[in-house]
Amino acid sequence: MTVDVALDAMGGDLAPQSTVDGALIAVAEGITVALVGDEQILHAELAQRGGPRDGISVVHAPESIAMDANAVAEARRRRGSSISIGIGMVKRREAGAFVSVGNTGAAMATALMTLGRMRGVERPALCVFLPTPGGPTLLLDVGANAEARPSHLVQFAHFGSAYVRTALRIAEPSVGLLSIGEEASKGSSLIVEAHRGLSGVLPGFVGNVEGRDIALGTVDVVVTDGFTGNVVLKVLEGTVTMMFDQLRSVALSSLRARLGGALLLPAVGQLRSQFDYRRFGAVPLLGVDGAVFIGHGRSDAEAIASAIRSAANAVRNGMLEAVGEAIAQTT
Amino acid sequence: MTVDVALDAMGGDLAPQSTVDGALIAVAEGITVALVGDEQILHAELAQRGGPRDGISVVHAPESIAMDANAVAEARRRRGSSISIGIGMVKRREAGAFVSVGNTGAAMATALMTLGRMRGVERPALCVFLPTPGGPTLLLDVGANAEARPSHLVQFAHFGSAYVRTALRIAEPSVGLLSIGEEASKGSSLIVEAHRGLSGVLPGFVGNVEGRDIALGTVDVVVTDGFTGNVVLKVLEGTVTMMFDQLRSVALSSLRARLGGALLLPAVGQLRSQFDYRRFGAVPLLGVDGAVFIGHGRSDAEAIASAIRSAANAVRNGMLEAVGEAIAQTT
Repeated sequence: MTVDVALDAMGGDLAPQSTVDGALIAVAEGITVALVGDEQILHAELAQRGGPRDGISVVHAPESIAMDANAVAEARRRRGSSISIGIGMVKRREAGAFVSVGNTGAAMATALMTLGRMRGVERPALCVFLPTPGGPTLLLDVGANAEARPSHLVQFAHFGSAYVRTALRIAEPSVGLLSIGEEASKGSSLIVEAHRGLSGVLPGFVGNVEGRDIALGTVDVVVTDGFTGNVVLKVLEGTVTMMFDQLRSVALSSLRARLGGALLLPAVGQLRSQFDYRRFGAVPLLGVDGAVFIGHGRSDAEAIASAIRSAANAVRNGMLEAVGEAIAQTT
Repeated sequence: MTVDVALDAMGGDLAPQSTVDGALIAVAEGITVALVGDEQILHAELAQRGGPRDGISVVHAPESIAMDANAVAEARRRRGSSISIGIGMVKRREAGAFVSVGNTGAAMATALMTLGRMRGVERPALCVFLPTPGGPTLLLDVGANAEARPSHLVQFAHFGSAYVRTALRIAEPSVGLLSIGEEASKGSSLIVEAHRGLSGVLPGFVGNVEGRDIALGTVDVVVTDGFTGNVVLKVLEGTVTMMFDQLRSVALSSLRARLGGALLLPAVGQLRSQFDYRRFGAVPLLGVDGAVFIGHGRSDAEAIASAIRSAANAVRNGMLEAVGEAIAQTT
């Protein structure tokens, strides 16, 4: 049995309804999916939706990991979890990729334990596509590691660039190093050293970029440590949410504003969906030796389908090979 | 001669028109201001506005520091700059506070050289009030230092809390430590150690907060290192700017949207000004032994007046004493 994607059918706030529905959308597009989880529950969910069909299978996992459980401990303990069994399928080449919108920490820990790092990789990185007016910007690391050394940032830049090359088909993605000033001398010693390791080495490296460049989409790839990246991601999400909330409240502040708000609603709704982080599906844990994609815990069926699509496409487009080659050049 | 505020009349993108106009607004409210800068230029500006009047004076500074000049070198070299002379007035107690919207780095370096740190302070911090739906949130450090040790963050928390107590008259401000998870164990070793130094020590300390809490205004004070703080500030500014730009463009996307946009314009304009970072005037460089306030380079006359007001009020309300006492408790 070989499938394109093994899906953690038990992971995420809306599972298993969202995962089963999402898988069915992807299957209808010709992607083969294994639903990994409690087989009784999953067969029942499938039965409610017309029963078994081509392209979708169920792989039993007797255990599951709660969204808020201690990641590393659970990853070690629960070898029968949907995460552990799904990643095992990638290891044994029974699945091209694994997708989870469940416990991110457990998925990362299990991926590292089971698949290990690609040859030459010092640290894996979690990355995310951010919607910007200039098109998607890849931000990494957004939290695989709480601390980083300069050589880690240098590698993140190389594999971020390789991923964007294959995912967005951009020949030479522009890559910026997040700092607090554009000059090479600006920033912490971490940044100054990483800048030295990238300048004149990575094609497309534009030097330091600043916080506002992330929102504006100035470059294709923004490289930072996992602490800063995770903070930035949550500041962005929080600010966008807060702005739409404020906008709704001013649009209710007077009769005139209510009328204006009603007329503007479809256009604003489109804008809102453009900035909905859930719609970006899932992003790979770059640097591990296998395709592991992690999505937002609040993913609905559409977001799950998009996650499955991202993973299947990335594998088809040679993401792993491209990242492997990029790393080989840094070592 | 003693004045409430010595103003760097030559600093900022719109100086000296903005600084002279801003000073006149503040003087009309009963605050005394010394305009520090080229006396010929400043007297000419005053003459155009009806000549000298009570409450405003001119102090000559033969040099000025460009907005983009290398901060520390210039601060050392240009002892006759408006920044150097203005801060000298604070040192000699000829002015209660110094306000500049010019070269931030030069103002920080000069303040440290001339006034030194308050007794017990390890590092000063630059802080900023962010507009949030829950009221202003103080974020510090936003760039006085590119790197931090745990003890620095502990002090920032103490003096940030003391400043909010006097500036916003909140009896016990809530203080959060910016991290990538709410549990005390989450984050870099810097954060985990700082958490240990604050927990059970600083009244109002709520533990770790995350990026989204900044935008939502969950706490009164958010403490972070100068690198992360500066990045966060610019991500926030960039996101708000980008969202308003996007909103304007969708409001032009159809006839219906145009009409809606026109009706909604006054309400959105109000929202926009609420999130205009310039309107927050200026914020103190906390931890130096004297009141030095730094504002946004793009400040207009209204923003300058608000900066002067912030500085005069803070001194009146005993900001320096409160910060000094807070530091004494940490040493």
